[in-house]
Amino acid sequence: MALQDNFRKAMRSYVYSVSILSNTNENSECHAITVSSVTSVSIDPPSLLVCINKSASIHDSIVIGSKFCINLLTKNHEELSNICSSYENENKRFQSDEWDLTDIPFLKRAQANIFCEVDQLISYHTHSIVFGKVLKSSNSDDINTLTYVDGRYE
Amino acid sequence: MALQDNFRKAMRSYVYSVSILSNTNENSECHAITVSSVTSVSIDPPSLLVCINKSASIHDSIVIGSKFCINLLTKNHEELSNICSSYENENKRFQSDEWDLTDIPFLKRAQANIFCEVDQLISYHTHSIVFGKVLKSSNSDDINTLTYVDGRYE
Repeated sequence: MALQDNFRKAMRSYVYSVSILSNTNENSECHAITVSSVTSVSIDPPSLLVCINKSASIHDSIVIGSKFCINLLTKNHEELSNICSSYENENKRFQSDEWDLTDIPFLKRAQANIFCEVDQLISYHTHSIVFGKVLKSSNSDDINTLTYVDGRYE
Repeated sequence: MALQDNFRKAMRSYVYSVSILSNTNENSECHAITVSSVTSVSIDPPSLLVCINKSASIHDSIVIGSKFCINLLTKNHEELSNICSSYENENKRFQSDEWDLTDIPFLKRAQANIFCEVDQLISYHTHSIVFGKVLKSSNSDDINTLTYVDGRYE
């Protein structure tokens, strides 16, 4: 497993911005998952992609035409980031009053909120690559983005 | 264009790690391009993706089965990052003695070097999404990764 170990080690020095992807499923139940794989793809049309593990509970709710929000986190969101990346805390994900649950769930005081519609889904081994067409976005002008590097937040 | 402007603004607060993708084309000519869209996809098999604008000169040299290196940059590589992201400086990209040009070109003192083989290519509007199967990787233990946020290096 030297190949995998070396790849993991190399990626530990990668600095990730931390986001939470939030949506509702067909029964209007809220889902959220911490993700570090958000990448803007194109400006025309405005679009981004994010990689979701097929074993994540949110995975099957992400279907073509469904909507989601990428909530780019601030350094105040460490605890919420941990909650939304742990299986054990699944039922705690929407307990915080940080959420607006009126329609597509979103974090009210995120660094940025990017609302998308799923435009394409590509299967790649353990993960699905979700292409989102941006519907609307907003951001805080004060930049305080939560990042993760070498196994810790920064 | 409010949609695009707002998306651009929201993504300005995203903290990107900066890499240079380097390869050779079928005539063994070296290419390199600065990229901020590298994302690890799966650990099994070890794989990553990167988004490449179809108008980039390197684009057509990236074909299924071809090899490339993702050179994750350190804070000492700002100038090289600028050179490899500017059309005017295209002929200067390999002038630095930082490069090893023996086989797949790579940066000798990068934060990390991840050698990949192109496994899949997905077209998405202006960009191609390149899926790379990791062949080998190495890294520096001292973490000094070059990042870019709000229009400047950090």
